[in-house]
Amino acid sequence: MDKKIAESTIYRLSRYYRSLGHLIEMGQDTVSSDDLAEMDGITSAQVRKDLSFFGSFGKRGLGYNTRLLRQQIAEILGLTRSWNLGVVGAGNIGRALCDYQEFKRQNFIIKALFDADPDKIGTDYHGVKVYDYHKMPELIKELNIEIGVIAVPAERAQEVTDKLVESGIKAILNFAPRSIKVPEDVKVRYENMAIEVESLTYYLRERFGK
Amino acid sequence: MDKKIAESTIYRLSRYYRSLGHLIEMGQDTVSSDDLAEMDGITSAQVRKDLSFFGSFGKRGLGYNTRLLRQQIAEILGLTRSWNLGVVGAGNIGRALCDYQEFKRQNFIIKALFDADPDKIGTDYHGVKVYDYHKMPELIKELNIEIGVIAVPAERAQEVTDKLVESGIKAILNFAPRSIKVPEDVKVRYENMAIEVESLTYYLRERFGK
Repeated sequence: MDKKIAESTIYRLSRYYRSLGHLIEMGQDTVSSDDLAEMDGITSAQVRKDLSFFGSFGKRGLGYNTRLLRQQIAEILGLTRSWNLGVVGAGNIGRALCDYQEFKRQNFIIKALFDADPDKIGTDYHGVKVYDYHKMPELIKELNIEIGVIAVPAERAQEVTDKLVESGIKAILNFAPRSIKVPEDVKVRYENMAIEVESLTYYLRERFGK
Repeated sequence: MDKKIAESTIYRLSRYYRSLGHLIEMGQDTVSSDDLAEMDGITSAQVRKDLSFFGSFGKRGLGYNTRLLRQQIAEILGLTRSWNLGVVGAGNIGRALCDYQEFKRQNFIIKALFDADPDKIGTDYHGVKVYDYHKMPELIKELNIEIGVIAVPAERAQEVTDKLVESGIKAILNFAPRSIKVPEDVKVRYENMAIEVESLTYYLRERFGK
């Protein structure tokens, strides 16, 4: 478990984690790599390869114990504890995240919205307080925020990034459609909803000549 | 260009497309694979490999012409025309998408929100009308909707999927945190914001022992 795992593997582990949760809800105690593969639309060889990274969870012919496998994936992904998030930008996306059930389910807790708009500062959205963006560095420390979420327009993304990094943040989820520069030890993930649509438009064009 | 391109390549093409747009805005006429790689945080060998799929865009030592390369990627991804989207679920995520600048910029046009809530049906959100979910099959044809977006709770995702498929939709973006089953010729992409956060929590745990 010390070796570096590829991003794409981490992504699939997140998918398995969800599928396993679903199986447990349905009362299923074991699952085969074939079934997991079918649920997630990938090959069973890939499932076995991904899970082999972490030692042998499954027994040949018996499949995997759903609860045990889910628990072990949770430990790998760091999901056995809660995480504090700070969202910069109290617009539509920032607000949608405050209500996002899937964050709540994973114990991703939005501790603060940060915004520079005086009309928004001091208000709250469904229990999440909007704080002054200019006080972010102190508040990140005070509220023990570990993950920064950028939900501001593209042209402000780098400035917000720099401020998050100055505040000691090592992990950033960026909704702004712009590549951002960070020091080597800071991890960035991009959440661009248009990019997912583009693999659909590629598919429609390629497959149906649309 | 007839061969099948891996999903991960398509995803990186979308990233290059954005970086090229940024360079063009900054007045840059050419770009090296090294520079593109640096902008997107990948290796220049990977950039050259990705772009080699589509023939030789670049000239050795001269780099790529930014406008030409961007145009060619746009053609590959199907971004030289507009696309009509229908969003099922007029909650926070559905509404956030109606305002999403990056969709507008790519000519992804949300033609309709669909919802079953009588209080929402007939209203509009920033110019996008909320229609009765039960009339979706006719409206998808009438409004020439090509891509369905699922923004309903997980437990309703499969039912909505089936209705989209019945209506002739071949490409679905699913925001609900649940795997959905579709016929072989229907393409699904998952947009789960928690999954991106999970590669951050994995990183924080792995790198900093958090």
